Amino acid sequence: MNKTVVEYTLNRLYDLGISDVFGVAGDYAFPIEDTICNSHHMRWIGSCNELNAAYAADGYARIKGMAALSTTFGVGELSAINAIAGAYAENLPIFHLVGMPASGVQKSKRLVHHTLGNGDFDIFYQLGQRLACAHAILTPENCISEMERLIATALKERRPVYIGLPADYAVMQVTEPLPVTTPKKSTSDKKTLEKAVSTIIERLTHSNNVCVLPGILSTRLGLSDNVQALINKTGLPYATMFMDKSILSESNPQYVGMYDGKLMTPEVREFVEKSEYILGIGAMMTDFNTGSFTANIKPKQFINIMSDYVEIDSVIYPSVYMEDILSELTKRLPNKTYHQIKARGLDKPVISDNGKITAQYLYPRLERFFKPNDIIIAETGTSSMGLGFALLPEGAQFHNQTLWGSIGWATPASFGAALAAPNKRVILITGEGSHQLTVQEISQFVRFGLKPIILILNNDGYLIERLLCDYPEAYYNDLAQWNYHQLPKAFGATDWHCEKVTTIDELNKALEVAGSTESASYIEIVTARYEASELAQKLKESKSSLYSF
Amino acid sequence: MNKTVVEYTLNRLYDLGISDVFGVAGDYAFPIEDTICNSHHMRWIGSCNELNAAYAADGYARIKGMAALSTTFGVGELSAINAIAGAYAENLPIFHLVGMPASGVQKSKRLVHHTLGNGDFDIFYQLGQRLACAHAILTPENCISEMERLIATALKERRPVYIGLPADYAVMQVTEPLPVTTPKKSTSDKKTLEKAVSTIIERLTHSNNVCVLPGILSTRLGLSDNVQALINKTGLPYATMFMDKSILSESNPQYVGMYDGKLMTPEVREFVEKSEYILGIGAMMTDFNTGSFTANIKPKQFINIMSDYVEIDSVIYPSVYMEDILSELTKRLPNKTYHQIKARGLDKPVISDNGKITAQYLYPRLERFFKPNDIIIAETGTSSMGLGFALLPEGAQFHNQTLWGSIGWATPASFGAALAAPNKRVILITGEGSHQLTVQEISQFVRFGLKPIILILNNDGYLIERLLCDYPEAYYNDLAQWNYHQLPKAFGATDWHCEKVTTIDELNKALEVAGSTESASYIEIVTARYEASELAQKLKESKSSLYSF
Repeated sequence: MNKTVVEYTLNRLYDLGISDVFGVAGDYAFPIEDTICNSHHMRWIGSCNELNAAYAADGYARIKGMAALSTTFGVGELSAINAIAGAYAENLPIFHLVGMPASGVQKSKRLVHHTLGNGDFDIFYQLGQRLACAHAILTPENCISEMERLIATALKERRPVYIGLPADYAVMQVTEPLPVTTPKKSTSDKKTLEKAVSTIIERLTHSNNVCVLPGILSTRLGLSDNVQALINKTGLPYATMFMDKSILSESNPQYVGMYDGKLMTPEVREFVEKSEYILGIGAMMTDFNTGSFTANIKPKQFINIMSDYVEIDSVIYPSVYMEDILSELTKRLPNKTYHQIKARGLDKPVISDNGKITAQYLYPRLERFFKPNDIIIAETGTSSMGLGFALLPEGAQFHNQTLWGSIGWATPASFGAALAAPNKRVILITGEGSHQLTVQEISQFVRFGLKPIILILNNDGYLIERLLCDYPEAYYNDLAQWNYHQLPKAFGATDWHCEKVTTIDELNKALEVAGSTESASYIEIVTARYEASELAQKLKESKSSLYSF
Repeated sequence: MNKTVVEYTLNRLYDLGISDVFGVAGDYAFPIEDTICNSHHMRWIGSCNELNAAYAADGYARIKGMAALSTTFGVGELSAINAIAGAYAENLPIFHLVGMPASGVQKSKRLVHHTLGNGDFDIFYQLGQRLACAHAILTPENCISEMERLIATALKERRPVYIGLPADYAVMQVTEPLPVTTPKKSTSDKKTLEKAVSTIIERLTHSNNVCVLPGILSTRLGLSDNVQALINKTGLPYATMFMDKSILSESNPQYVGMYDGKLMTPEVREFVEKSEYILGIGAMMTDFNTGSFTANIKPKQFINIMSDYVEIDSVIYPSVYMEDILSELTKRLPNKTYHQIKARGLDKPVISDNGKITAQYLYPRLERFFKPNDIIIAETGTSSMGLGFALLPEGAQFHNQTLWGSIGWATPASFGAALAAPNKRVILITGEGSHQLTVQEISQFVRFGLKPIILILNNDGYLIERLLCDYPEAYYNDLAQWNYHQLPKAFGATDWHCEKVTTIDELNKALEVAGSTESASYIEIVTARYEASELAQKLKESKSSLYSF
């Protein structure tokens, strides 16, 4: 093994298909950064700050399946930790390389910068562990076996991994011998698998009223094609919940629409809840997936295939892997004609009397703006709620951070997604309040010559909070007043199409340009303070169920 | 007690002199935010993101002694955690109020937003504890006694405190009876105090070669006046180290200059290291305080008065408080004439042949720009290193995050400082790389009508890293190219004086305007890529001592 520890580590990541590393340079991480920049096949993606770098890695992982991040000790890793927690919650494997002080500096408890001044060099590793599915500090003696363990766990659990690289160990030659065997992939317990599969088949073959609820976990596990094959083979209808939107095509006739409990689309609710069986594939019954817990699915209706177990009528079948069960079901379930309804999108855009941009115009208009294969990144808040029920064209992807819901995520995540899919059209839609958290990352689109369409919904404050709190006009919902459309130029853009629109006419013209120009677009869309989609309004009505029990 | 838990909590903070709460609004924190905004004496300071809010609280605490921050559960508190760690390292008490989901939501382990989706509601509190000197989750039954404990610990240790407020408990009436006694202030053990004091007096009265090294910890403990009284009474000379710069006047004739080991000011080094005794008052021998550990102070020379112990020739005298020992020394030490040298500032500005702005011009020019009582906030990196050895006018304060050293800190911290001292001139000096991390907070100066002077040193990359790494021209030291001077306008400024200067003439004109205008100033100062102060250059030469042992 003629490689340093960090060379070996990066090579193993490259083997997995990771060639980009997001991060902010820092002195304890020089060995990592130097190795990336001296390598012929790795690329350093310097972000404006570590939180943004980690969000960008999150967006990249949503497109490519996994991502890498490099930060420096203490200050860097802690700045990224909120985004890492989001990747943990939403099952995105991010290999987080942390450049640590040299082992001797740590052992002698030197009073060096980026420490708490108390000689405790372990604390940040201990904090990071809690938000990783696996963690290690690499040395020349352990890095081969540890990397295999970290990778295997990341691939199985699809969550972040913490990799500590002390600056001295990082540049030493690996001394551990290469492994003689590669780790085996987990396989299901055969008896339990058969029991679960035959129970599902027995139920589904005797019913014509079944609805699949495919979950984002299936995509995270790399099993989208397997789910698609099951749907194609069987003819089963499917609905999706908010977090899972667009993981299967919304133009497929088997798609019945978005399911959100009592809050929205009553025809989908009736279809789902009156199904004799509901087959979840990694479905998570979170607050925003269930219309603030208004979904009414009874245990006897519910079958849920999770990553390593199956639940049928509240009975758990353990050690059964999603891939195996999908394969068996696809093989053995018959093709049938199930009861089916047709998915609807948003209503037609409604032109207001005064020509101003209303929610009833905006979201349906955007639905019509989307093209096949678009990557749409919607920020948590009224912007995502407005688009969640749009019917998307073939191949379009809709990404949202529904469970973790950390505002500010969308702007850097869309940069990460654009970098991961340079040949696709990336559309970012964010409220201006959320955009303020991480705005500087629009400069990265410029730096890397990417051409996103960025739509900033400016409604003069944190609208979703105005809707959910007791005092909508409270000062804490107000924001510093920015001239958003001037930002790209200040951030270095020279040929971006930047506009501020306040009327339907201006919006339409701006979208026409955005849809046809070769440049990136940045459109500030101004609406009245309380212009919100139906879902956002309904959430307000059901807010007690979100907070009070 | 006719108050809710959060009303009581905020009232106790107000009693301490805290009337501003920095934060970002979030739904689980509505009860906190509502109570602040409905109160007549508290003010909500909404920041662009939580990291920036916590840095602003840090800057505020540097001026006012303590600060308050409010964030929401999970996403909010984790985004702030790097700045909280910085406040922990640098002894700044920040009361961090975290709005948590209602107790019932937590107990039933609901799958709600801002969780990891695994029902673990304790993890963020557990993480937060590690970076707090005290922590509690408040209830109607415990909030009075817990707040007293939290406050007493914060005042003693001068570090952040974590206060969790579940949304339901927060708005319940306090049921705990008021305490019958208030907690006592810690007092020194009398015998040990006498032993320590008499040992110090014995040494100091027999020597004329003594140098005081006052440390920032004395200021954090609110004992600046006590240290000043000791200096005034005794005639003792003093030098300061980087982290401690400006805590005592630099125009006092007893001031001998900045001490930084072998790296800088050899005359100060000789003075300090040849002193028979060196009396530290909360001195921390960190890497950046000791010229990368080139300081040579022998144990038998060294006396250090820490917050609750004294060290004399490596012997620890425990349970002795700084306030008590300063009081005794001031009372009992005689006034004498000690050996003394005169502090020097930077050399005269050197005008370059081509009129471009060099380090040899810039930093001496800025030294001459400073006025009495200025608050100067210098970012970690070449900008702070360039100014660290400037001689400051009477009453001027120099703030730097020397130990934690998290780049990005200075921009929001200067906002916090400006808010805390609205009648003082606040000057922010930051490299453009650091500025990129937290740039949006310049919009808060605009929002609150503050008039800072912001100087952005643009040297086309992370200069301090170019100097310290093995490959100065490595790509990871490059940045997205911004038009910095256009940012204030995009961030909402209408009357700011914004300029980009590349020559000495332009710089001088811009500084003249900045020094005389009623508006805020934002000056982008462009230098060549490697224009760095002497200290930054020397750090490069001694870098092996920073990283290798």
